[in-house]
Amino acid sequence: MRLSNPITKTVVLILCAALGISVGISMSASAAGPDTDLLNRAKAVFGPLPASMPSPDNPITPEKVKLGNILFWEPRISVDGTVSCAKCHPLGLYAVDGLRKAVGNRCKENPRNSPTIFNAASQISAHWIGNRTSVEDQAKQALVGPPSYGMPSYESVEKVLRGMKGYMAMFKDAFPGEKEPVTADNFAKAVGAFERTLMTPALFDEFMQGNAAALTTQQKRGLALFMDSGCMTCHSGPYLGGQMYQKFGIFEPYEKYTKSLPVDEGRSAVTKSPSDKFLFKVPVLRNVAMTQPYFHDGSVDKLTDAIAIMAKVQLAKDLTSDQLSDIAVFMSSLTGKIPDQILKVPVLPAADQP
Amino acid sequence: MRLSNPITKTVVLILCAALGISVGISMSASAAGPDTDLLNRAKAVFGPLPASMPSPDNPITPEKVKLGNILFWEPRISVDGTVSCAKCHPLGLYAVDGLRKAVGNRCKENPRNSPTIFNAASQISAHWIGNRTSVEDQAKQALVGPPSYGMPSYESVEKVLRGMKGYMAMFKDAFPGEKEPVTADNFAKAVGAFERTLMTPALFDEFMQGNAAALTTQQKRGLALFMDSGCMTCHSGPYLGGQMYQKFGIFEPYEKYTKSLPVDEGRSAVTKSPSDKFLFKVPVLRNVAMTQPYFHDGSVDKLTDAIAIMAKVQLAKDLTSDQLSDIAVFMSSLTGKIPDQILKVPVLPAADQP
Repeated sequence: MRLSNPITKTVVLILCAALGISVGISMSASAAGPDTDLLNRAKAVFGPLPASMPSPDNPITPEKVKLGNILFWEPRISVDGTVSCAKCHPLGLYAVDGLRKAVGNRCKENPRNSPTIFNAASQISAHWIGNRTSVEDQAKQALVGPPSYGMPSYESVEKVLRGMKGYMAMFKDAFPGEKEPVTADNFAKAVGAFERTLMTPALFDEFMQGNAAALTTQQKRGLALFMDSGCMTCHSGPYLGGQMYQKFGIFEPYEKYTKSLPVDEGRSAVTKSPSDKFLFKVPVLRNVAMTQPYFHDGSVDKLTDAIAIMAKVQLAKDLTSDQLSDIAVFMSSLTGKIPDQILKVPVLPAADQP
Repeated sequence: MRLSNPITKTVVLILCAALGISVGISMSASAAGPDTDLLNRAKAVFGPLPASMPSPDNPITPEKVKLGNILFWEPRISVDGTVSCAKCHPLGLYAVDGLRKAVGNRCKENPRNSPTIFNAASQISAHWIGNRTSVEDQAKQALVGPPSYGMPSYESVEKVLRGMKGYMAMFKDAFPGEKEPVTADNFAKAVGAFERTLMTPALFDEFMQGNAAALTTQQKRGLALFMDSGCMTCHSGPYLGGQMYQKFGIFEPYEKYTKSLPVDEGRSAVTKSPSDKFLFKVPVLRNVAMTQPYFHDGSVDKLTDAIAIMAKVQLAKDLTSDQLSDIAVFMSSLTGKIPDQILKVPVLPAADQP
């Protein structure tokens, strides 16, 4: 089996976790007490949430974010006038649509579940199988994606945008010096810049900043379990995920528990490599308690069920219902406060001019 | 032909307007100048926009408005999880969806165009043909309307709402003292109370308050034309409409110009009375420049085209392109500022509890 280096390493780490072998980080109690120990271990694995998720290819400017925020809500550039970014990522539902699989223009079902776009722009790629390189790439390709906006071409999107006079000045401000700023590429950059600001700091971050009282006793128990059971082997970094692909179903086929139909073979559809069969991007766990249903196909409704399945198929562990509850309650500490500026509906330009 | 009294009166007024007969309000110039004259005439016809649109049957309370605002955005109570009030009334598009006819669950087409819900709760009824008695009645019936939320029963909606624990406290606050506050009736009252606060004061209101400089010279010319041509005979009151039913196509069949297919016979579908054939509720003109496309079937895209057709079929008048432009530019003075509190996305309760 051909496996890229980081993935081999991850599998070894998971196996160690499954076998109860302590790896890397010392677990011995220190003089500072169990809270400090837990905090230090967690800091080493996760790290603090940054203020935004910049990209050298798409610097964040206030003008770009403003335009991107407006375009995020714009349905008139979809083939049936019903699809905007906000359709599959409603901000009041933590930027998920609550459906098993996303529904696009003319009620077409998308192949997978809508992931949240909060705290999501720093992942290795976009989409569950990494078939989009970045949030900008995702935004652009969505415009012509048959089950999303469904437009026939980028030119057709540009024509609609150029037909609404109100957009011209905003694109000019966001992309100064460009002769024709109203383009699909700039749509993608503006929406991407907006997405790069969608951060939701949570109680967990207060804990990471050293306030041991930010988490309840049960949440700390859940966090310790999350780390000791091996979940953190893949769900690491400030987003608790998003940094690698991983096989879903290491010890048993996932569909045995999720009852998924059809069985999705994941990333191999992108790479055409048999070794990528059943690989999916490890999802970000920020706000996971608010983003039901779970998994790439939205096949599981309850968070505790999702945790139980993950423990079973990824770590060969049977967690007790108390343990599942502890981990789920820990995960609720990842539910962030959505900043007010994210929860603002922008007023869109008029279609017609008197 | 059986006609109720107010409608007979209106038809007489329209005929007078069409024949150029001055009715009711004196048009003689006064010493105070043309602006004051126009202002006084307009005040007598329209009157100021109130701060909210209360109802004795559904008193507005902050708790009810807060709950109604959240429920307005709630798609999980629709049969396919995609329909909320916000779907057909996106607030950033002046509470219209921009489609010819509204699209509900599973992409079902509704019989008519989505009207704006801004400044809309004081109309004689809801919907184009008055088949809903109030905004509360509209909100409630939408839940089980086959082309809208499509739920099988009110009980099924109540079950979903009761399954989301976060709603219980909010319904209790909004409907104190009720043993089981989570009901479809209270859904309707809360959404209705929210809708009764959706007011968008505009430049036109500044003018109505006596600031003659609030409108441009062209807008004042358009307003005078709007009144002198007879538009104001039906589009009167602070909402410029919403207070009566009127035959669409008094002098010629409307479909001759709108190319509507099929031809909608309007209110007679509700009353079963032949005299109500082609009667529609006179729409509110607040924000009309932002709420394309026009008419009950969204058959016309441009505001000036809509005005030309109205002049033709309702008043037997051929307006020049300058006159159409003047009236359209006047109508842009009805485009209100949407208050910030309306443009807030509320965070919805979690579906699951850890």
